[in-house]
Order: sequence, then structure tokens, then C-alpha cells
Amino acid sequence: MKKKEILVLEELLGSNKKIASEIRKKLEERGILTINLLSSPGAGKTTLLEKMSEKLKPNYKMAVIEGDIETERDAERIRAKGIPAWQIITGGACHLEAKMVGKLFPEIPADLDFLFIENVGNLVCPASYDLGETIRCVLLSVPEGDDKPKKYPKAFTTSDCLIVSKSDLLPILPFDLEHARKEALETNPKLKIFTTSALKDSGIDELIAYFVAALKELRQKNA
Amino acid sequence: MKKKEILVLEELLGSNKKIASEIRKKLEERGILTINLLSSPGAGKTTLLEKMSEKLKPNYKMAVIEGDIETERDAERIRAKGIPAWQIITGGACHLEAKMVGKLFPEIPADLDFLFIENVGNLVCPASYDLGETIRCVLLSVPEGDDKPKKYPKAFTTSDCLIVSKSDLLPILPFDLEHARKEALETNPKLKIFTTSALKDSGIDELIAYFVAALKELRQKNA
Repeated sequence: MKKKEILVLEELLGSNKKIASEIRKKLEERGILTINLLSSPGAGKTTLLEKMSEKLKPNYKMAVIEGDIETERDAERIRAKGIPAWQIITGGACHLEAKMVGKLFPEIPADLDFLFIENVGNLVCPASYDLGETIRCVLLSVPEGDDKPKKYPKAFTTSDCLIVSKSDLLPILPFDLEHARKEALETNPKLKIFTTSALKDSGIDELIAYFVAALKELRQKNA
Repeated sequence: MKKKEILVLEELLGSNKKIASEIRKKLEERGILTINLLSSPGAGKTTLLEKMSEKLKPNYKMAVIEGDIETERDAERIRAKGIPAWQIITGGACHLEAKMVGKLFPEIPADLDFLFIENVGNLVCPASYDLGETIRCVLLSVPEGDDKPKKYPKAFTTSDCLIVSKSDLLPILPFDLEHARKEALETNPKLKIFTTSALKDSGIDELIAYFVAALKELRQKNA
């Protein structure tokens, strides 16, 4: 990149970081746990949210911000589960930015427990943009292959949690779970790793328990 | 985006387009058919190249430029098939640019038939960067879902050819091939569509026949 490009990028990321910090502060003060979900297209983010919504609904209030380049489809899927959802259509942009979340802020109910942000399907660019989340999760779906943590490291180094999704396909696809875990932890030793199948309802309860514990911790800090 | 950001982006894309046109002119003059492969991470670009290399090797000379954010793994897989391969490590950048291909130009053998460029796994950003290819192909793997052409339109509108990959998974995954074809053609009516499984050697011969016909056409133009 040329010097002018680098300067513009630094300015953009600096301003994004500032807005993200303000959003995080406000959300955490309200006792809302915000989770930013990152992955390749089709790794199963929306299906995971649909499944979690069924399990969370009886005891918790959740809402979802959907990021897509085009179409309102993902927000419609979430609303069909009776969950409030806002669709951000980026119109070409490859990632969400904090200011897009900031614009929605006045509409976010103050009594939420969980705010999920489903980022644009892209394992690269969203990793550079803090959205004001408390927890960042990267999904790696079994069909994508176990070699991705080292090939796309930033999504893994900046995340708190790795969700290996579509685990129902493990018996039939050449994905070595231990190899993926090993390379993910070499990339980021602090990653919490969950192996899930939304389709077969496997591993979802463990993931929810992790989010619920993080919510409790956040509220204890506030108390 | 702010005015300054837009100006820098326009400058960058303008300069990329110019370099790409020069590369295309030189490669086509040599009678080399260059194919840029775009897709999400893990859609099967490298496996497709491995399979095609076995079939092309007896009659054609091919080489591969591999684009990745980190690691030399994909080039190593191609070299293991006895095919020349160069690895471009972008070190964080989410797409290949024409100037990266231009730098390799002196090393590309003049007597090649096919030059494949495997872009960084990203269904968004690579679509904006012409690399000097004659044919652009987007891969959509069955596990990603049939709703992607409308959600990530630019990769489909800028491509000549759609390769639906991992078709061996069609019987067990909720992917409606007719729906995907319909939405892909609504996005870009000129798309040639191939349904392939590199694992089961299905549809690969048809895809190769398309590339061979394009090579012949290119050389007839040159004659």
C-alpha cells in the first residue's frame, strides 16, 4: 500500500476503535452482553442463532443485528423465530463497522440480555473492525477444512471463542478436529473452543452456558 | 465512506485496472489462457486444481499462482502434483491485486497453455480486482448454501463461469441446485454453470472442455 492509503486506513481504524469503545461502554453499563459472530459465508451463523434463540427465549431476552452485503433474508429468518432483528445492508462493503452499529443504538431495548451481531460472511476483513462487542466468536465449519486457522489467522487471534460448526459432517468429511484445535490454539492459546451442530442440537448447550457465565460476570462487575 | 477514502479507492482500482489490462494483453499474445478462481475459504479451489492437473497434464502445460494471507500450503499441494506453482502471501490483505501477478510475470514460462490464479478465499473483495485474467470463475460449494448469489452478488456478476463444487454432498445437504442456478442466472444471465465434485471426479471433464474451447478461441484470434 502507498503512504496515502495507509494513512486513510489508520484514520478509519482509529475512528472505528473510538466509536466501538463508546458502544461497548454503553452496552456493558446496561448489562447487555454483545457477541460478534465472524465466519466465511455459509458457515452456519444464522442457523446457530436460530437454534440458540429457541433455547434462550424462555429465560433471556435476545436481539440480533444482521450484516449482509445484499438482501434482508437473514433478519427475516431471525424475526420468524420471534426475535427482534435489524438488517444492516452494507451495499458492497465487506464488513460491518462500529458506526453502523452505533446508528442502531437508539432502537436497542435497554432490557436485553444478549445482543448478537452476525457479521458479513467473510473470514478476513471483519477481523479488523471492533464493533463494541464484549465477546468475539469465529465459526469454522467442518466443510471448510481444518487448515483455516493458520491460513486466515487474524479472525482467530482477535477472537475469544472458536465455534467448530456443522460437526454432524465430521464422520463423512476429511476434517481432523484435533488438528484444527491444535492449530487454532497455536494461533491463539486463549481461545475457548466449542464443537457444535445446530442441526443435530449438539454442543449448543455448552456454548450457551459460556455466554450465560459471561453475562453473569459482566453484571457482577456492574453491581 | 468519506470523500478522501473514496478518492484513494478509485485511484487504487484505476491503477489496478491499467496493470491488469497490460498483463492480459501480454498473456493473450503468448496464447496463454488465464483463469482467476474466486470463492469463500474452503470451497475447494485447490482440490479442483489438483484434480484438473491430473487430467490436463498429458496434453497441456499448466501453472498456478496461489494467493493466501499466510502459509505456502496451497502451492506445496500443487507442486506435489508436478505442476509449477508460485505462492503469493498477502500478509493480511484480503485479495490479490494485478501488480502482485505482474511481479511474477518474468517467471511465467512462455509456452504455457493454462495459467490458473487461485485468489484469497473471500467471496467479497477479490471480485473488485481484475488480475488480467481472460476467464473468471466463482466457486460456490454445496455446504455454503444455495442463497449466496443474491447475498454476495459482485463475485457472480463479474464472473464468466460458476462452478458449483462438492456436488457429492447434494444428497445429504439442504442445497437446492435449481434454486442456486436460478438466482445465479438472475444475478448474471451470461454465467456458464458447471456442477462438479473433484472428490468423485464428476463434472470436471465438462469444465475442462470449456477451458480448452476458450484456449482454442484465444489462439484463433491470435492467428
